Amino acid sequence: MRIALGIEYNGADFCGWQSQASGCGIQDHVESALNTFLAAPSAPVSVVCAGRTDAGVHASSQVVHFDSAIEREEISWVRGVNTYLPPSIRILWATPVDEEFHARFSARSRTYRYLLLNDRVDAGIMRGQVGCFHLPLSAAAMQQAASVLIGQHDFSAYRAAECQARTPVKFLHEARVETNGQLFVFSFRANAFLHHMIRNIVGSLVYVGAGRHSMDEFRRIFESRNRALAAPTFAADGLYLTNIEYDEKFRLPVPRMRLPF
Amino acid sequence: MRIALGIEYNGADFCGWQSQASGCGIQDHVESALNTFLAAPSAPVSVVCAGRTDAGVHASSQVVHFDSAIEREEISWVRGVNTYLPPSIRILWATPVDEEFHARFSARSRTYRYLLLNDRVDAGIMRGQVGCFHLPLSAAAMQQAASVLIGQHDFSAYRAAECQARTPVKFLHEARVETNGQLFVFSFRANAFLHHMIRNIVGSLVYVGAGRHSMDEFRRIFESRNRALAAPTFAADGLYLTNIEYDEKFRLPVPRMRLPF
Repeated sequence: MRIALGIEYNGADFCGWQSQASGCGIQDHVESALNTFLAAPSAPVSVVCAGRTDAGVHASSQVVHFDSAIEREEISWVRGVNTYLPPSIRILWATPVDEEFHARFSARSRTYRYLLLNDRVDAGIMRGQVGCFHLPLSAAAMQQAASVLIGQHDFSAYRAAECQARTPVKFLHEARVETNGQLFVFSFRANAFLHHMIRNIVGSLVYVGAGRHSMDEFRRIFESRNRALAAPTFAADGLYLTNIEYDEKFRLPVPRMRLPF
Repeated sequence: MRIALGIEYNGADFCGWQSQASGCGIQDHVESALNTFLAAPSAPVSVVCAGRTDAGVHASSQVVHFDSAIEREEISWVRGVNTYLPPSIRILWATPVDEEFHARFSARSRTYRYLLLNDRVDAGIMRGQVGCFHLPLSAAAMQQAASVLIGQHDFSAYRAAECQARTPVKFLHEARVETNGQLFVFSFRANAFLHHMIRNIVGSLVYVGAGRHSMDEFRRIFESRNRALAAPTFAADGLYLTNIEYDEKFRLPVPRMRLPF
């Protein structure tokens, strides 16, 4: 049968989602914990995730699926697998799903948040969990620029050279900038994202917010589809995968708000 | 001259504020960084803090003072000393103060927050930064119980055996319980706190929130002043020193909101 899992992790402790020969990928830890919990199943379980996060990127709500001949109670998957995981990776829920469910291909959209500390001194308590920028930023200017990106566009200006996506055209449903004291919270929802797309967009918005690029320059660079003209990629530290949206027919649990932002 | 510093730190990386022979105290790191920055002053600088936090307890706004014959620009103290500190300890501001200012004795009140994740699965991303409780909690019941504590009382029921305070009578100005998704934020402001007082209060409020103690039992135990009757001490992980209030005449900077709660 096919099982879907909801997973939270602090990306600072790992080399990204994807499995690595050295075993430092979050996927390596999840698969190893599943196989230990299932006590060496006939064929080792491997998982498919909704969004492969880079090194240092966090997830409050990653979704994966896998197939298993062995049945367990929902609470057994959660408690049992967590026993074999490092404490900064937590299984939040488990649910049997229809065979046609696919964590990656069934996803209708993904939501990411970027948390940025705008202060002259770097983060101490939230080190590794926020990006930092020292000069004062205008939230209004960044919100205005972010709004330009909403809709269906060619996002090549924010595409990493190594990106393997079939097309640079994506549909951005939402792009918001909110403030909370010295913290800026950026939220982005799209059908899919290019490699480094959000970190590159945040870099470009910060250039606008700091007055280094005008709205016209921002728009011109976006429309040029030329990555070389846009601002540098922002740090991975502040990036969180916060939601994967699926058709209601799959009846996946609604993610619980476990972060203060 | 006398200098005051505002300091943020992630307590998970250290053995508490106070200086230790092994050098693992936050005080050890701050004093060592100051003395390195001052390039071996004639007498080594030592600092006095407003609130000695335990191992694992964080501070978004600790205040210390020290005396130095060597004068520096404000920005030099901040940037220079940060260079020699571990990244999870950050000097936020520095300011010359009157000789009568004393970080501990001039403080009129202290504010602490406790962040609690109320979910059946422990924190992954916020590991070490929140307390965790698995059974459902009633915020309304906990707020009602917290209100009983406001005012001047003998807080012996929440006093650790090793507490060295002269008196168990303290004035609690504020006790609030707020929720944000699965997170509970407890705020407490008092003229001073007994050793483990907040972690013990949080433990007792959680007993009320989970229905293990009734309001009557909570009140009876508080009035008994008997530590042995009250609930166990809660984990240090979720505790933050967030503000020290001084007379306006000292003109200390207002703490900047650098945390999302």
